[in-house]
Amino acid sequence: MTAPSAPSAPLGVFDSGLGGLTVVRALRACCPAEDIVYLGDTARVPYGPRSPETIVRYALGCSRVLTRRGVKAIVVACNTVSAVALDMLRIELDLPVLGVILPGARAAVAASSGAPVGVLGTAGTISSGAYPRAIAALSTRTEIIGQPAPLLVSLAEEGWLDGEVPRLVARRYLEPVVQAGARTIVLGCTHFPLLREPIEAEATALAGRPLTIVDSASATADEVAAFLVERGLATARSERGKLHLMVTDRPRSFSDVAARFLGEPAEDVEVIDL
Amino acid sequence: MTAPSAPSAPLGVFDSGLGGLTVVRALRACCPAEDIVYLGDTARVPYGPRSPETIVRYALGCSRVLTRRGVKAIVVACNTVSAVALDMLRIELDLPVLGVILPGARAAVAASSGAPVGVLGTAGTISSGAYPRAIAALSTRTEIIGQPAPLLVSLAEEGWLDGEVPRLVARRYLEPVVQAGARTIVLGCTHFPLLREPIEAEATALAGRPLTIVDSASATADEVAAFLVERGLATARSERGKLHLMVTDRPRSFSDVAARFLGEPAEDVEVIDL
Repeated sequence: MTAPSAPSAPLGVFDSGLGGLTVVRALRACCPAEDIVYLGDTARVPYGPRSPETIVRYALGCSRVLTRRGVKAIVVACNTVSAVALDMLRIELDLPVLGVILPGARAAVAASSGAPVGVLGTAGTISSGAYPRAIAALSTRTEIIGQPAPLLVSLAEEGWLDGEVPRLVARRYLEPVVQAGARTIVLGCTHFPLLREPIEAEATALAGRPLTIVDSASATADEVAAFLVERGLATARSERGKLHLMVTDRPRSFSDVAARFLGEPAEDVEVIDL
Repeated sequence: MTAPSAPSAPLGVFDSGLGGLTVVRALRACCPAEDIVYLGDTARVPYGPRSPETIVRYALGCSRVLTRRGVKAIVVACNTVSAVALDMLRIELDLPVLGVILPGARAAVAASSGAPVGVLGTAGTISSGAYPRAIAALSTRTEIIGQPAPLLVSLAEEGWLDGEVPRLVARRYLEPVVQAGARTIVLGCTHFPLLREPIEAEATALAGRPLTIVDSASATADEVAAFLVERGLATARSERGKLHLMVTDRPRSFSDVAARFLGEPAEDVEVIDL
């Protein structure tokens, strides 16, 4: 095994399920030479509705699987876990841990110029208050409107990405957010980049002008790439990095859903026990 | 503890989450004097997308919690578990185990007079082929059209029970089913009784005449009540039975969702570890 702090070591990424593959997709666009080990805790997905204690316990379990694989840093590719468990993971683990909330918050503050920011996420992410806290730390004057949007998760998993249903669902969730004055919308769940089009279309229709959509998956990948370079942890290789996928259960619809999120075929999947 | 085979012992009911509370609701309408112990495995919900091996393992864990509580019979209030794990539970457990598939299948065959039957369910229930098998055993000439309908589960949990979105979602799932000639629709998931109205309305609109909707939760409660009487296991009490609720994790939205499914307030909930 490569020493965990070596630039040649893989990057560890985990999520409660397959949604985090949108972060992997962004990472592979942004730092394509990095090897990535991904763990999707598909046996216990979704974390969103679970208690904070349970989420912390599950997140530690996932992180330990990745550290045993010799990763150089861990990307928590899950808004719910980033919202609830990031501090605890940083205390418990002896390597860099990066979440998706702060990059999303930073991109939102940069885009909003002080106007209200709407955040769509799971019930867990929204009720944790993590986005308001992160944004308040960056800009005290920015108002945040949080909106739990669980049906968008189901639409992304079902692959209903365009047409009337996603637009109506997006509109219903966005209506109070846009009415409250939001001019920037954060996709605060790793599933939502797949629904960016209907969300953007409905937000624009409701506001009467284009709103800025912040994709926390891309924002995170950009920050991870910069972090690796700053810390001297970026790989020196130039060929395309390897991707190793692990899941805790292989759901029936795995290949379709994973490929949809990842944007490339999801092959050679290892099923592990947690 | 009361002897497990005593009529005064409680009835055990379990589900992967809270959907099975629609079966509890039907049981409390149908045999109101029975004490009921309910276990919702909310820490590991949903079972629908999981592998058969995992579902069997989880179902055995839930059943053992109930047998330790001295139940006289177990009602598997989950279509996915009934589809995948019922035989194994009957082999492993030393008490009567009743599922939701056969009662739903029986009611569908009785209603259909040989015309095709459509079944809406989770991906797990539909791909298991359990409804076609059960219906074929009752009537070899009845054609079955299975339709996975995962978004209906999310709508029921989110409480979007009427209006445009549930109707559009129901229509999209029902369209191929009605086009294939189904004249009876089985609500093959314990969440779906909450969406009976939009499902019935869209089925009628698509078919151009009222279709018969079979609710597997009610059909199951009727069969359980008859079974208890036949076996001399019905309680002799006449006052309203007690309801004890257990969950493996208390989700944030527990009270709202549970009360919606149960049709009465969900109080005194015990959180257990599995």
